[in-house]
Amino acid sequence: MADSEPGFLIAREEMHKSLAEGGAPIGACLVAKDGTILGRGHNQKVQKNSPCLHAEVSAFEDANHVDTTAYIGGTLYTTLSCCDICAGCAIFFKLGRVVIGESKTYRGGNDYMASKGIEVVELDDPECINTLQTYIKEHPEVWYEGIGVKKGEKGI
Amino acid sequence: MADSEPGFLIAREEMHKSLAEGGAPIGACLVAKDGTILGRGHNQKVQKNSPCLHAEVSAFEDANHVDTTAYIGGTLYTTLSCCDICAGCAIFFKLGRVVIGESKTYRGGNDYMASKGIEVVELDDPECINTLQTYIKEHPEVWYEGIGVKKGEKGI
Repeated sequence: MADSEPGFLIAREEMHKSLAEGGAPIGACLVAKDGTILGRGHNQKVQKNSPCLHAEVSAFEDANHVDTTAYIGGTLYTTLSCCDICAGCAIFFKLGRVVIGESKTYRGGNDYMASKGIEVVELDDPECINTLQTYIKEHPEVWYEGIGVKKGEKGI
Repeated sequence: MADSEPGFLIAREEMHKSLAEGGAPIGACLVAKDGTILGRGHNQKVQKNSPCLHAEVSAFEDANHVDTTAYIGGTLYTTLSCCDICAGCAIFFKLGRVVIGESKTYRGGNDYMASKGIEVVELDDPECINTLQTYIKEHPEVWYEGIGVKKGEKGI
């Protein structure tokens, strides 16, 4: 099962790490085709006031100790569906597979990645769902601005 | 003409700035719907050994002094076609328009952005074309690795 693969467990660790730092609990891990763990990271919206350093982008940046062609055919594990930016990364770096902890809270670019030939595995991991949904209830302003929803909409 | 708009001139300045730093000459600028310049940046592949800090992403990051909802309906100026990551940014941040200095050397996600309702303006700017093509001849390894081409392919 994909939810017991090391990359997914690391992505979930990163999710909790971000929460402990006061940030949005979304984590990711990039694993090469041969199983080597290349990079890991979490959302940096709060921690670095970054609009683009989503969990997945952070994992790709953390993997910069290798040539990016080492990413080809690899697997990206993420606790939440990839947005358009992160789906773009998966396509640009020619990944083979993306394993997603949950796609209940947010759906993003999953279908677009699949249309480009990437195997998309959507888990329905209760730990990912509960952790993020609790965070959104407590910090709606971070979540909604992060996905481009203006103040005054969606009750924030 | 789009090639005389302030945002495009800034993007071209950023292209030259990156070249002067020894990096890939690709620049970008993000301008709000009301004309306010929000951010500017250039490719950081060489300077920061970054796989994802393309010119456009750098401009979005530089604009983090405002809420990202201020990007909505804005224009992204870039000296080169957006790759999948940067096209993903344009879509995710709900831009209205993307002005591209050149799409001769690389085409990327231009059609995908257009299919999502973004106005895509493709210039054929000789300064952008010549600057990048000269750089690629001198540093093919940076360019090809940057777009995910393995060593041994494309004569590198």
